[in-house]
Amino acid sequence: MNAIKVAINGYGTIGKRVADAVDAQDDMEVVGVTKTAPSFGCNLAVKKEFPLYCTSDETKRISSFSESHFECCGGLSNLLSIADVVIDCSPGNVGSDNLSKYQDAGVKYIFQGGEKHELTGLSYTSSANHTENLNAEGSRVVSCNTTGLARTLVPLYEYCGSLNVECTMIRRAADPGDSKKGPINAIKPVLKVPSHHGPDVMTVKPEIVINSLAVAVPTTIMHVHAIVADLPENHGLTTESIVDLWKGTPRVVVMHGGGNRLTTTAEVMEMARDIGRKWGDLHEIFVWEDGAKLVGDRLYYFQAIHQESDVIPENIDCIRALMGVESDWRSSVAKTDAAISRYYSL
Amino acid sequence: MNAIKVAINGYGTIGKRVADAVDAQDDMEVVGVTKTAPSFGCNLAVKKEFPLYCTSDETKRISSFSESHFECCGGLSNLLSIADVVIDCSPGNVGSDNLSKYQDAGVKYIFQGGEKHELTGLSYTSSANHTENLNAEGSRVVSCNTTGLARTLVPLYEYCGSLNVECTMIRRAADPGDSKKGPINAIKPVLKVPSHHGPDVMTVKPEIVINSLAVAVPTTIMHVHAIVADLPENHGLTTESIVDLWKGTPRVVVMHGGGNRLTTTAEVMEMARDIGRKWGDLHEIFVWEDGAKLVGDRLYYFQAIHQESDVIPENIDCIRALMGVESDWRSSVAKTDAAISRYYSL
Amino acid sequence: MNAIKVAINGYGTIGKRVADAVDAQDDMEVVGVTKTAPSFGCNLAVKKEFPLYCTSDETKRISSFSESHFECCGGLSNLLSIADVVIDCSPGNVGSDNLSKYQDAGVKYIFQGGEKHELTGLSYTSSANHTENLNAEGSRVVSCNTTGLARTLVPLYEYCGSLNVECTMIRRAADPGDSKKGPINAIKPVLKVPSHHGPDVMTVKPEIVINSLAVAVPTTIMHVHAIVADLPENHGLTTESIVDLWKGTPRVVVMHGGGNRLTTTAEVMEMARDIGRKWGDLHEIFVWEDGAKLVGDRLYYFQAIHQESDVIPENIDCIRALMGVESDWRSSVAKTDAAISRYYSL
Amino acid sequence: MNAIKVAINGYGTIGKRVADAVDAQDDMEVVGVTKTAPSFGCNLAVKKEFPLYCTSDETKRISSFSESHFECCGGLSNLLSIADVVIDCSPGNVGSDNLSKYQDAGVKYIFQGGEKHELTGLSYTSSANHTENLNAEGSRVVSCNTTGLARTLVPLYEYCGSLNVECTMIRRAADPGDSKKGPINAIKPVLKVPSHHGPDVMTVKPEIVINSLAVAVPTTIMHVHAIVADLPENHGLTTESIVDLWKGTPRVVVMHGGGNRLTTTAEVMEMARDIGRKWGDLHEIFVWEDGAKLVGDRLYYFQAIHQESDVIPENIDCIRALMGVESDWRSSVAKTDAAISRYYSL
Repeated sequence: MNAIKVAINGYGTIGKRVADAVDAQDDMEVVGVTKTAPSFGCNLAVKKEFPLYCTSDETKRISSFSESHFECCGGLSNLLSIADVVIDCSPGNVGSDNLSKYQDAGVKYIFQGGEKHELTGLSYTSSANHTENLNAEGSRVVSCNTTGLARTLVPLYEYCGSLNVECTMIRRAADPGDSKKGPINAIKPVLKVPSHHGPDVMTVKPEIVINSLAVAVPTTIMHVHAIVADLPENHGLTTESIVDLWKGTPRVVVMHGGGNRLTTTAEVMEMARDIGRKWGDLHEIFVWEDGAKLVGDRLYYFQAIHQESDVIPENIDCIRALMGVESDWRSSVAKTDAAISRYYSL
Repeated sequence: MNAIKVAINGYGTIGKRVADAVDAQDDMEVVGVTKTAPSFGCNLAVKKEFPLYCTSDETKRISSFSESHFECCGGLSNLLSIADVVIDCSPGNVGSDNLSKYQDAGVKYIFQGGEKHELTGLSYTSSANHTENLNAEGSRVVSCNTTGLARTLVPLYEYCGSLNVECTMIRRAADPGDSKKGPINAIKPVLKVPSHHGPDVMTVKPEIVINSLAVAVPTTIMHVHAIVADLPENHGLTTESIVDLWKGTPRVVVMHGGGNRLTTTAEVMEMARDIGRKWGDLHEIFVWEDGAKLVGDRLYYFQAIHQESDVIPENIDCIRALMGVESDWRSSVAKTDAAISRYYSL
Repeated sequence: MNAIKVAINGYGTIGKRVADAVDAQDDMEVVGVTKTAPSFGCNLAVKKEFPLYCTSDETKRISSFSESHFECCGGLSNLLSIADVVIDCSPGNVGSDNLSKYQDAGVKYIFQGGEKHELTGLSYTSSANHTENLNAEGSRVVSCNTTGLARTLVPLYEYCGSLNVECTMIRRAADPGDSKKGPINAIKPVLKVPSHHGPDVMTVKPEIVINSLAVAVPTTIMHVHAIVADLPENHGLTTESIVDLWKGTPRVVVMHGGGNRLTTTAEVMEMARDIGRKWGDLHEIFVWEDGAKLVGDRLYYFQAIHQESDVIPENIDCIRALMGVESDWRSSVAKTDAAISRYYSL
Repeated sequence: MNAIKVAINGYGTIGKRVADAVDAQDDMEVVGVTKTAPSFGCNLAVKKEFPLYCTSDETKRISSFSESHFECCGGLSNLLSIADVVIDCSPGNVGSDNLSKYQDAGVKYIFQGGEKHELTGLSYTSSANHTENLNAEGSRVVSCNTTGLARTLVPLYEYCGSLNVECTMIRRAADPGDSKKGPINAIKPVLKVPSHHGPDVMTVKPEIVINSLAVAVPTTIMHVHAIVADLPENHGLTTESIVDLWKGTPRVVVMHGGGNRLTTTAEVMEMARDIGRKWGDLHEIFVWEDGAKLVGDRLYYFQAIHQESDVIPENIDCIRALMGVESDWRSSVAKTDAAISRYYSL
């Protein structure tokens, strides 16, 4: 079987990670990545030996790369013409423009969670709706927050048959490499109430009833979710059996905060650095074992989301879904993770 | 009528504010404040002309004050012997020791929310249970978080007759004058789930059913509460009527985040500085008008709590309750606030 | 003598403080403050009873105020027509436009340190060059950093007769009420080397030789200066006599970091809140007594600058200089400070 | 030639990095790492397959490891008995105790910069005094700050023959995995003036005259040095030739802040993550090319120090020096760096 030819449109925080993750798989390859201009990120593409294209087809912009001593292989159209599927990792709000380009080029496409569900009419999370995405023309991998919620809620829903959830999201205000955004010393509530984050879960698992509130706080590492989930009567679960359910769920890590001293997102991220993941990423959702408790039918728990990386493996699985090469989500997940978790597994 | 003689045991973050607030009332006076040692805070007491006592009765420790050129009027026992009521503003965990001293001295006493309800068997919030505290020997003014919850929940409860609440507290990790505590760049969940904060409301209003989750974040100004409250059926309220209810509630400020640009706790605190309150304090609970929404019977809203100051006026009202000089809580609140909101009202 | 009529053009962080400071003096009065639009800050002007004007003369913009229920007394021209002197507290980069308006209106003018010296050809700091500014048409009060440097360096220079200074400025990245700017977790060097900050001292005291380097750090309270000053040979000073020199200098506060626990800018700002200054301001430059040391002819010391407020009293003194009503800088300083340090002196 | 047998005493922030760096070399091997107790860090040692020892020889403490299901190979004495050299990475203040243990065991030893020069009487930085350390019994690799200063100052000194330096260090207040330490919103000057940091350079290159001032700021990533260096007359250097000198110096990276958008330590650390270094480390000292300027004989420049990692390769070189296996420092550096900079070179 030939390797799936993957184009990455946009080579920033998400794009650079998706490119590496594609590169690590044996059933797909990176045929090119795009940059808007010959900026700093081009150095990385060159070092990784990914063919470099311009996001635009304008001759003038393409030639600006060579003036900065970067080899540019052409415009987006050139890249799309040699790709089977394109991963749209552009900064957002250019989604609909790009969609028509992808459709005109006849390539399959995957958008990120910054775009709305309505753009594609189909969204994706590995554990929620892989089957539904099989052989589709295009899809949208949901955001880091939605992916994180789906990881722990879908198995609960599948066990219980119904779930009614409220989530408060304490969000990092900027990424580690971003020195422009604040606040330095404040908490910022998202005044659209309830927030859009929670209900987005219903784009991949409509049966889960969920709302959310969100605040941004002055940290650059990980979102934290404070979750209150009402289980149906006679659910038959205990705090322990719920924790065990998660321990058996791919891409969920369950650890003690107390004994292991993983008391904050700082120590969680340090663990990710220790295990040698590229960029210190943690693709898994981190659940504090001693921060989960079932009180009657109401479950309380905390989880932490590495906003830069949890969606990366979902993009890989989504490629396989769209290309129809792997119909079982667990098989795809196993394959993806074995390839990208190079150094140590948790 | 003679002024009520008030002793302040502990002159730190809370004690210095309570002393000023007592001093501003015309029916009470500060007969003394205590310090453990002749440290920096003594300067402030001297400038404010509050008689200075030592928290201990030991001669050696009392005389250490004069060695640092501070006039010390005696030990705690001396202070208690001339007081009608003592406000315990000590750093916590010395509550039970102090209680017996107060009882031995025959003075009434008020503890702060750092102590447990069990210490006094009676707790206090102006709007929740002033009457219950009338003429009691002692009480406990609940914490800044509990006070904040009572301010907005009690009027809702009284209107509806029942209330079922979940609150996620996003807490500032350190006070502005504290440079020791972190984290600098992390979110810290309180792993005891549910947290103790929410249920503490039930010590002043047992009919409200409430649980909470809490995280600490790297900011020094204000806690934020993300609240989800289930109202009973047929409550007859709308988002607008709830907002109006709060607008008519003492010590609750309801403002727009969008139009007024009060988008984060930074701008809220800046407003408090603008209106000229001492220490830039905001005794009121701040509710974002455009961050409240009733969806069916479920109410979502955000509020911000100035952790250093919201309990200060409650301490004044509690003095009046214990001394039995004002049986109507609204009258006491009006009197207290008129005296301490010197420069501008909101 | 009639009170000097002062217009404040721009009512933000600096403008609102200057207005209050003018209002507190008995030889001057605020005849009006301007806002660009009927935004949140107008509430404060109304509460303080300062006549409100529009920064523009356009009818449409002036009438927009009344639509928001603010009484607007007219445009900038109307305000200038009734003023003796205007304090330009506009956000910067509109200086030259404004200058011609002021000159056309025939009012004296004071710009802030955000504008360049070249705009006015004359700059001002109370202790450095008050005499030079007497009866001038207009001047520029230098920036918070330059003012801070002048406060401690000018008396040293006057004692020694020459001074060669290097200063590294560790700058707060955003003001407390600003939640937009970062960085959240980074240090940002000012890559223009040496930076413009230090040499700006030479606009008020050309004899001091000075350069500087600057970085911005994630805090909202106070700049810190790390200063290395070479004194001439045979200066006759000791660490102690230098400290004494500063103790006798207006608007310089010298305190111990160790014994008094003023170990960081957090505790310094807390002291400012304690002494009851409006907005928690500290107009004085704070010097750590135990952080100053003379090694041979080289003096090392740290000072902290409250970026929002140290220039406020200089603006008042500068008004008196331009209006020619007080030729002795020390007399003006004494008068200014007595009026604005209402509650407690240090 | 047999591989040098290296023991790592203390497996924390520095120890875990040194262990990996030793492991990556072909002329040395890790014979064991120690932990005080069976805590979280043991997991990492097990995953890396480093033999685990206890820092103590007490039977009870050794056996506590097996109770936590970690295999412990014995106490420190056991480890020392099979080692040629021990790298002391213990938390500090236990240096002199450990020294006698190492001497008794007859192994060579390397301490870190947390210990004083007096402990060993010999200190080490690769470019400064490798030769002096050849075949010594023990040495001390200087701190991250001193190492950083030596990297850029030693080549300057060697070119010029003399150097007079002032350095202001803007230090990160806590490491990324540390959530305990503050301040959250303050700047903390080190009141011992001048600070101990700069003069420590003279333990490896006594001819450089240097003093320093230091402040701690609320960030977890990288120290920044603001350096003012006086060159001797007739030095013959220009800004450009100095930059070129550094570009030819091992373990110094010189890049543009402007064009490349490496404007703060956030972007510098992001670059380190991009190039795939373990833990996102940057062993090199980062110098902003557009932040260096020679004005007359005075050189101004900024450099950034990755506090967790810059000393790691120096430890490797120091092992070779003590064991007498490589007398040329540049050869050792080349060998060390080729092995640890696995993925991409800068």
